[in-house]
Amino acid sequence: MFNICLLTIGKVKESYLAKGVEEYLKRLRPYAKIELQELKPESFSKGTKEKAKKIEGERLKSFLEKKPDEEIIVLDERGKQYTSLELAQKLDQTKKKIIFVIGGSLGLDQEILNKYPKFSLSNLTFTHEMARLLLLEQIYRSVTIVNGKEYHY
Amino acid sequence: MFNICLLTIGKVKESYLAKGVEEYLKRLRPYAKIELQELKPESFSKGTKEKAKKIEGERLKSFLEKKPDEEIIVLDERGKQYTSLELAQKLDQTKKKIIFVIGGSLGLDQEILNKYPKFSLSNLTFTHEMARLLLLEQIYRSVTIVNGKEYHY
Repeated sequence: MFNICLLTIGKVKESYLAKGVEEYLKRLRPYAKIELQELKPESFSKGTKEKAKKIEGERLKSFLEKKPDEEIIVLDERGKQYTSLELAQKLDQTKKKIIFVIGGSLGLDQEILNKYPKFSLSNLTFTHEMARLLLLEQIYRSVTIVNGKEYHY
Repeated sequence: MFNICLLTIGKVKESYLAKGVEEYLKRLRPYAKIELQELKPESFSKGTKEKAKKIEGERLKSFLEKKPDEEIIVLDERGKQYTSLELAQKLDQTKKKIIFVIGGSLGLDQEILNKYPKFSLSNLTFTHEMARLLLLEQIYRSVTIVNGKEYHY
């Protein structure tokens, strides 16, 4: 059974995306241990973006430092790309709990990006809220692939 | 001003995705001529999927044959991938109307796939309903890039 945590910054504000996230968490629960961790976002103004990103990076770091046994993967568009089948195989073969880290609206602090392996959903840049939905949909698609369950295109 | 048509099969059934599609169409309208064409989906049972896909392919073909002056691009995960910046440049440089073709739940007929240039949102497979939202979000992101408008990650 997959054992996965999505480590994120803040809540999903777009209501339709929040509904999609809820929908896939619900669909996943019979097949996977799935957890959504939402750390506190740092408020910022135009001139304090970098500082706020750094603070959010510190929050992620102190969360991740308490998880020495988990496999940590950071979402970044410059990361490694998989097909849905390859992702399903990777999730199926990993015995550890996997933590996927998704940055907030400011993106991810460079230190976090440098430290962990990176996974890319696409060459395209999506909003971090959409990335959450896309990743959950792909984890659900992986479940259907591994279990030979019908699912659509 | 961008002049874009999304040529699709059927309506978006997932209500949260339909809401997202509506949202991006609304956001795009001040900046782009944007049109959503939804052709009739063919109903099918387990044994008639290929036949139904063929019929949907015929519907797309007869729509596209009446559009000799448009640039036609087919969404397919094996297609060419762009970054958001590259996509914005492509949309900005194209003087013709662009028709993006997205298949239905059965995917696209091979004849259509062979005939036109292909664009890939990702190596990952998403549902065709999600592909619609993702493409609209990327067109909107292109608009913000071309117009130097603030938009988030």
